[in-house]
Amino acid sequence: MDASEARRHVEQLGRSARRAAAVLAATTGLQRNAALRAAAGAIRGRRADLKAANEKDLARRDEFGLTQAMVDRLTLTDKRLDSMAAALEEMAAQVDPVGKATAAYDRPNGLRIEKRRVPIGVVAIIFESRPNVTSDAAGLCLKSGNACILRGGKEAIHSNLAIAAAVREGIGAADLPAAAVAVIDRPDREIVPALCRAAGLVDLVVPRGGRGLITAVTEAATLPVIKHYDGICHVYVHADADLAMAESIALNAKCQYPGVCNAMETLLVDAAVADRFLPAVADKLRAAGVELRGDDRSRALVPDMAEATEDDWRAEYLDLILAVRVVDGLGEAIEHVNTYGSGHTDAIVTARIGAADRFVTEVDSASVMVNASTRFSDGGEYGLGAEIGISTDKLHARGPMGADDLTTYKWIVTGRGHVRE
Amino acid sequence: MDASEARRHVEQLGRSARRAAAVLAATTGLQRNAALRAAAGAIRGRRADLKAANEKDLARRDEFGLTQAMVDRLTLTDKRLDSMAAALEEMAAQVDPVGKATAAYDRPNGLRIEKRRVPIGVVAIIFESRPNVTSDAAGLCLKSGNACILRGGKEAIHSNLAIAAAVREGIGAADLPAAAVAVIDRPDREIVPALCRAAGLVDLVVPRGGRGLITAVTEAATLPVIKHYDGICHVYVHADADLAMAESIALNAKCQYPGVCNAMETLLVDAAVADRFLPAVADKLRAAGVELRGDDRSRALVPDMAEATEDDWRAEYLDLILAVRVVDGLGEAIEHVNTYGSGHTDAIVTARIGAADRFVTEVDSASVMVNASTRFSDGGEYGLGAEIGISTDKLHARGPMGADDLTTYKWIVTGRGHVRE
Repeated sequence: MDASEARRHVEQLGRSARRAAAVLAATTGLQRNAALRAAAGAIRGRRADLKAANEKDLARRDEFGLTQAMVDRLTLTDKRLDSMAAALEEMAAQVDPVGKATAAYDRPNGLRIEKRRVPIGVVAIIFESRPNVTSDAAGLCLKSGNACILRGGKEAIHSNLAIAAAVREGIGAADLPAAAVAVIDRPDREIVPALCRAAGLVDLVVPRGGRGLITAVTEAATLPVIKHYDGICHVYVHADADLAMAESIALNAKCQYPGVCNAMETLLVDAAVADRFLPAVADKLRAAGVELRGDDRSRALVPDMAEATEDDWRAEYLDLILAVRVVDGLGEAIEHVNTYGSGHTDAIVTARIGAADRFVTEVDSASVMVNASTRFSDGGEYGLGAEIGISTDKLHARGPMGADDLTTYKWIVTGRGHVRE
Repeated sequence: MDASEARRHVEQLGRSARRAAAVLAATTGLQRNAALRAAAGAIRGRRADLKAANEKDLARRDEFGLTQAMVDRLTLTDKRLDSMAAALEEMAAQVDPVGKATAAYDRPNGLRIEKRRVPIGVVAIIFESRPNVTSDAAGLCLKSGNACILRGGKEAIHSNLAIAAAVREGIGAADLPAAAVAVIDRPDREIVPALCRAAGLVDLVVPRGGRGLITAVTEAATLPVIKHYDGICHVYVHADADLAMAESIALNAKCQYPGVCNAMETLLVDAAVADRFLPAVADKLRAAGVELRGDDRSRALVPDMAEATEDDWRAEYLDLILAVRVVDGLGEAIEHVNTYGSGHTDAIVTARIGAADRFVTEVDSASVMVNASTRFSDGGEYGLGAEIGISTDKLHARGPMGADDLTTYKWIVTGRGHVRE
């Protein structure tokens, strides 16, 4: 497939998605929720088909050189299928993001102004590995009245197509257009740039995955992109921290689930408490299996700690590894976070109002935590319901991105023959 | 200047703007308002300098081949200078967009969640001709706590630099960093792509101007862009319209100020009322100096009307020219608007609730008007205060874009040692 074939392929999918989006924009929440429930039913009902499709992908694991961790993520177990279906049912039960007025007022001349949430239109989502993204993303787009075009990894193509077919069955059963969910079945590389430049057919591109994928999308795109980059999350233990609290937060932020984007990757310890705090927490982290890499001042306090390099400050380990640095006060901590962090989630542990205020104001991240573990940075924990991901961009959606963030708004202006003088 | 020199130049400006943005993010509204008032004072106080700089630009009018309309827009009269200063003072009086909590609640586990508006950071604005954009854009960015990098047209460079110098004087007088407002003084073409790709230094690019400028920015950019495209605005006269109201709205939308983006460019008339409506309104439009270009059915009702081509349906005339089409009902009107419009502002005139509802739901535009002139599509008319422009994009900001839209948000999460189980 060359670039012009890819453009034609995307154009065909895009036109069909655009028509479906126009229909969805005029549906009620009840209809969309019925489709979500029917989709959940179809996933449960097609369990055997979905597992058979998944087997086809798993059979090619060696061809694609999948690691055991990748195989685990790819495998559709009964439990995973149930939780995919349950997620769709939970979306159906959530408050409708469409139609909400975020402002509504009369102007002095009697003109009525309303700012009303409406679907974005057609959302393209480009992702890697986990096939459950297919049902989650399709479900969230449907909930918010959008059509979607999904492009998953080639190693999960049979699973993704089978899941999408089940979701489409549900959509059709609720008398909505099945074309609202499209999956790109061609593995060709040329598809992604074509998708990111399909002005008039696609309204938003959401890349979820590694740095390589996101950079490729950003470089190619002329359409709006919301990036879901790394989480290089910090916990800073301030001079006035409750050290028992700091220890518990540090252990939780690193060890509770190290493979996710809101796990701590760097621990910053104020010089004023480093000698009291670091040796003890280092023992406990090591007892939990964490490898520590520190700067000179940390290494002077903790025996046998490896030396951290510049690369460690920029690393998203997603593993039981932790970079550690002793800093001279709040200013240096903020400077470190803003220099090396990824703007995802950063926490301070402190008993001082002034320190918390300054950290919250000056750290330029999507989520800033005070006396809480970075692991709370999550749509479910914030009460937003399912999330399409965690945006590290600042425009439109920042941090956990739920169904509300898959809407835009319209200004609806109502007069009684008003003209401007 | 080659591409790598342009990158270095932008990098230097960007670093300085980034430092200023970090300072601004920690200021109070009172400080930013004091800077706005001082900037207004400096514009009034430097009146002679500003006019002298403007004279230098005007002296080169022939070199740049400026039309009389362009010269008019470029000229800094006393009245214009006063209104620039007054606009800054009005911004100072507006509600502060920074620090507003758009959501704040406790989770069942006692975790406090707050979604708080904060400045975006560094905003690059690329615009053409009118030098008052320099003070308006700098003022709105300052109001919302952002640093800005401005790139105006080369034909206005002396005026833009002089206005920025006055604004910077005001910022300095209020003890804020003057580097918060930067103007690019180099005319080189390579600057724009460098600015649109300055990841980590610039957070948002806003192009304001013709299609060529916006397309060039969109093609080059890897950063988020909010486009301010054409206004191809429609008024649709429904079968159940009050025809006197429809006539008054059509005349106002076309004639009250034809040179702006919210003026009507195409009039759609329902076939059911075309014979009663069109001949009379055509006479009045012509009496107001409007040239009409119609489809066959319009031309059958109005003598000597020129034939509209496909290009006319896509034209933003910004002039006393109007395309006219007779349509068979609401569905055809909506189809026409969504096919040929620019998603800016479209109006229906109707007495029927059902028709208004359907038009509002199905027309995919930033502003949808019912029984009101398209000319109301404006930040001032919506009560938003000064606007940076009218976004025809759907992400982040849609329609009139005020100081609120120059903010993003942060999730601030406060616990008492909360860890995740």
